[in-house]
Amino acid sequence: MNLDNKVSQLAKRRGFYFQSAEAYGGVAGFQTFGPQGAELKRNIEESWRDTFSRGLGHKEIEGPTVMPEPVFQASGHLDGFDDMIIECPECGTNTRADHLVEDNTGVEEAEGFSTEQIEGLIKEHGLVCPECNEHLAGVEVNDFNLMFKTSIGPGDGTNGYLRPETVQGIFTEFPRLKQYARNQLPFGVTQIGKAYRNEISPRKGLVRTREFTQAELDLFIDPEEDRPDLTDVKDIELKLYSVEEQKSDEGEYIVATVEEAIEEEIIGVNWIAYYLGIAKEWYKEIGIDMDRFRFRQHQKGERAHYASDCWDAEADISGEDEEEEWLEIAGFSYRGCYDLKKHGQHSGNEREFKIFKEYDEPVVQEETKVDIDMGILGPEYGDEAGEIAEIIEREVRQAPSVAEDGPIFVHLDGEEHAVDNSAVEVSVEEVKKTGEEITPEVVEPSFGVDRTVYTVLVHGYNEDVVDNEKRTVLHLSNEVAPVEVAVFPLMDKEGLGDRAREIASELRDSGLNVEYDDSGNIGKRYRRQDEVGTPYCVTVDYETLEDEPETVTVRERDSTEQERVKINELEEYLSSKL
Amino acid sequence: MNLDNKVSQLAKRRGFYFQSAEAYGGVAGFQTFGPQGAELKRNIEESWRDTFSRGLGHKEIEGPTVMPEPVFQASGHLDGFDDMIIECPECGTNTRADHLVEDNTGVEEAEGFSTEQIEGLIKEHGLVCPECNEHLAGVEVNDFNLMFKTSIGPGDGTNGYLRPETVQGIFTEFPRLKQYARNQLPFGVTQIGKAYRNEISPRKGLVRTREFTQAELDLFIDPEEDRPDLTDVKDIELKLYSVEEQKSDEGEYIVATVEEAIEEEIIGVNWIAYYLGIAKEWYKEIGIDMDRFRFRQHQKGERAHYASDCWDAEADISGEDEEEEWLEIAGFSYRGCYDLKKHGQHSGNEREFKIFKEYDEPVVQEETKVDIDMGILGPEYGDEAGEIAEIIEREVRQAPSVAEDGPIFVHLDGEEHAVDNSAVEVSVEEVKKTGEEITPEVVEPSFGVDRTVYTVLVHGYNEDVVDNEKRTVLHLSNEVAPVEVAVFPLMDKEGLGDRAREIASELRDSGLNVEYDDSGNIGKRYRRQDEVGTPYCVTVDYETLEDEPETVTVRERDSTEQERVKINELEEYLSSKL
Repeated sequence: MNLDNKVSQLAKRRGFYFQSAEAYGGVAGFQTFGPQGAELKRNIEESWRDTFSRGLGHKEIEGPTVMPEPVFQASGHLDGFDDMIIECPECGTNTRADHLVEDNTGVEEAEGFSTEQIEGLIKEHGLVCPECNEHLAGVEVNDFNLMFKTSIGPGDGTNGYLRPETVQGIFTEFPRLKQYARNQLPFGVTQIGKAYRNEISPRKGLVRTREFTQAELDLFIDPEEDRPDLTDVKDIELKLYSVEEQKSDEGEYIVATVEEAIEEEIIGVNWIAYYLGIAKEWYKEIGIDMDRFRFRQHQKGERAHYASDCWDAEADISGEDEEEEWLEIAGFSYRGCYDLKKHGQHSGNEREFKIFKEYDEPVVQEETKVDIDMGILGPEYGDEAGEIAEIIEREVRQAPSVAEDGPIFVHLDGEEHAVDNSAVEVSVEEVKKTGEEITPEVVEPSFGVDRTVYTVLVHGYNEDVVDNEKRTVLHLSNEVAPVEVAVFPLMDKEGLGDRAREIASELRDSGLNVEYDDSGNIGKRYRRQDEVGTPYCVTVDYETLEDEPETVTVRERDSTEQERVKINELEEYLSSKL
Repeated sequence: MNLDNKVSQLAKRRGFYFQSAEAYGGVAGFQTFGPQGAELKRNIEESWRDTFSRGLGHKEIEGPTVMPEPVFQASGHLDGFDDMIIECPECGTNTRADHLVEDNTGVEEAEGFSTEQIEGLIKEHGLVCPECNEHLAGVEVNDFNLMFKTSIGPGDGTNGYLRPETVQGIFTEFPRLKQYARNQLPFGVTQIGKAYRNEISPRKGLVRTREFTQAELDLFIDPEEDRPDLTDVKDIELKLYSVEEQKSDEGEYIVATVEEAIEEEIIGVNWIAYYLGIAKEWYKEIGIDMDRFRFRQHQKGERAHYASDCWDAEADISGEDEEEEWLEIAGFSYRGCYDLKKHGQHSGNEREFKIFKEYDEPVVQEETKVDIDMGILGPEYGDEAGEIAEIIEREVRQAPSVAEDGPIFVHLDGEEHAVDNSAVEVSVEEVKKTGEEITPEVVEPSFGVDRTVYTVLVHGYNEDVVDNEKRTVLHLSNEVAPVEVAVFPLMDKEGLGDRAREIASELRDSGLNVEYDDSGNIGKRYRRQDEVGTPYCVTVDYETLEDEPETVTVRERDSTEQERVKINELEEYLSSKL
């Protein structure tokens, strides 16, 4: 059984996650988080919030998951958010055509190819339907839009879509968000929430689902002014798999500090280097194994046309003797001003998607002013006078010299009019400008929460031998473990159970996440807690009640070592460790 | 301006909530929570979780928002989750027909009427389109399903729906959830998440949106065994608007403790009384004004056919001189075994939706065993022998005496066969049963989170006069206030700003939600914090740096009183108050 299977079985057994609606046969791509998984996921989200939202002074919002069509016309998702699909004429199975090619030929990154190219490769390699082995040569490859569509309102309604990424809810609300930031750049906005992609071939488990959670951050900056404060991050070491290293194919990484990566231009955008540093520390904190972690730069063909540099955080999710399998768990991209410009244009509210940038000092500029005497143009040109005046104004503004000598020649509807320059007066005025409207640029770290949950479980999973007995244990970090302390009575007898319940309740009141368990023997209960990654187990036994002051045993998960602790020091003991 | 307008404007101005996608003209029924609103909402959710999930030992799960069609066939939403709609033949506007009747006639609770009855009332009262005044007599009233529909998977896909309530995700997963509860009743499962209803006429703001958040709890019980532990709730006083009081129409309430309400049978289900007690204390804690709060019992016509008793928590959201307006903010219903039975039947997995209930002691039952000698029946009846044997077995089991004397008469396909009783041997065996499969019953408190956010704002909103100046203030409870402490320097000069930033950062590290502000004069900054309901403002002034040890002023929101506090005691001072 491979590591993925082991983790999935543990996840099902202990209530981390499982296929939704199994009683109905399930629907591929939808998972439910059980009690332990929901708590683990919330802990990861809360930790992300502490680091990337509160910790950086960014503001979190919560927008709807259903959004109207024009938003996705602007963002480009309506036209471009497609995967290539091929339907088997024999059995009707739909397959992702680029994956079919990648899996069965030497071709990599087929996602960037055209449907015609993919059709050609299917023919050339004689590829067959993975379900029924029917030959697919000559079968049409089509684009399939990955957004879930619905209809809003009664009757025919208007088209709505489940958002394919949470950030469109941030861009769309920029006009208000800039107010809350008092029109001062830089400012960052975050959102943690559901996003949806109607994947053609979802994978089992949490890796490629159709409904998932993203934690995204959009930092809006003035690219001319705003630089990251590197004080706290400059010495953080990054393991970088740059485009160069990927080409060399030797699987080597560049190890560089954030500062070095910027100075040596390994990372093209200083803000990205800054966020990679923060992200690395965060991943470490939540228990991602740094030996199975790297940052990989996007190849040119991979990144969106508007992104000038893009790096992914990747985790190796393979087991010990398995082939390496790198999974993207976050992306860091520089989106420039692409999104705000598009939303400005499509909504017809361009100014709302800009921000007024005040100059340090007002700037005095010369501006050409053109006065046209309509008392002259009117009688001469009648209905056309207005249009002619407009053309003259535009031309003279561009090149004031045309009004200097002789008539001004205006072309209108195929006719040429010679307008006497006495009708036109040109002057130059000094205008004081205090600032200008600029479109902020965007740096966007975007995290997949479900994949992070999965990686935390995979990296935490271990089988070892304790007291000659095999055990399965999750080495979860204290930061995210769903249960922090389990409290057991040796037996639910002679007051031990009551005392243990009291202690559990007191620890709970102190803010810890505590589970009480009295079922089965102590060994079984330890195994149960090991499997959900509980860092500490507290046992109330007969000595507890005899000792003065009372004592309990505290057993640590990883070492399985036990220590006798006085009850009146228990809370402090645990808090200092957790 | 009425209270609702005032709160909405404050909400927009200060970033609590606002219409989504305003730049695109917005779509009715979708709201975005700004930075303050998202924090307030999360605080309310976290407080609910503490009380109803962790506090009661219930387990929280997180399921998908998109669910497959068979789930809603089972739950009844596909067929019955409709509102009545009438489309104006003149202007095309769709109106909710029962609301049209209620708003323009003396008729109440029109929701329970048939479409024909509504058509009749529209004709009788000569009702017109609210948009264009066209007469609607004779226009068809139709049922409109309120679920958002989508398609899952490529090609034609399968039908999926955005869940109209979060609980269906709990019922659907019952087969696994009972495992995590080790098959022991009672156990409770909670879920906080998005739900969706394609309302015909959404209201502005948070009151009736198309996408909203629910916090729901399903307690699964054995109705014969499980009773609530009333120890902590029995003396809590409830303001009850029972069906009786509603009929009397004098607007009087019954005030009774939880215990009295059960004993005097004002509340029919003891578990509902239990949860009303817990809910009341919770609402008080998060700042709902108890003078504008009540529990209202559902009329018989209002509640679902499967619910034996149902109460709503209601809040009056009207302003001081406005007519009372009671808003449902939670519902508490006894759903019996309706949902689990339905899911068992529709999924074809009935046993999975039951739980094995062990008897205290095994029960020994007598069971009649019928042995039929096919060596006799076979030769005599040929092809019909099997069927005849089945009939005999059934009949003898029901009444063993028929096999005692003479032949047994079997009717098959219009013929009567007399079977000699020597072919049939009857014996009685003792069978030991250790338990039986039962379908648990469900108690379901269900909370509307968005409406709770709205009520907290409405009940917290106030305008008063401070130092001869009008101020707007939100009296939010410390439990939910989005900002707990604001820290200001008198001016960002001479080290005051730096010191204030340090203090803000230290308070943040101690776990408080802190905002730093140095823009505008102090008065303006106090007003700003009053408007978002910040309980305490800390100001760093020149005295701060001179005093030994350093001191700051702490200003309390409601009284606006200021106190000088030593910096080394500040954290403790604030923690004790918050």
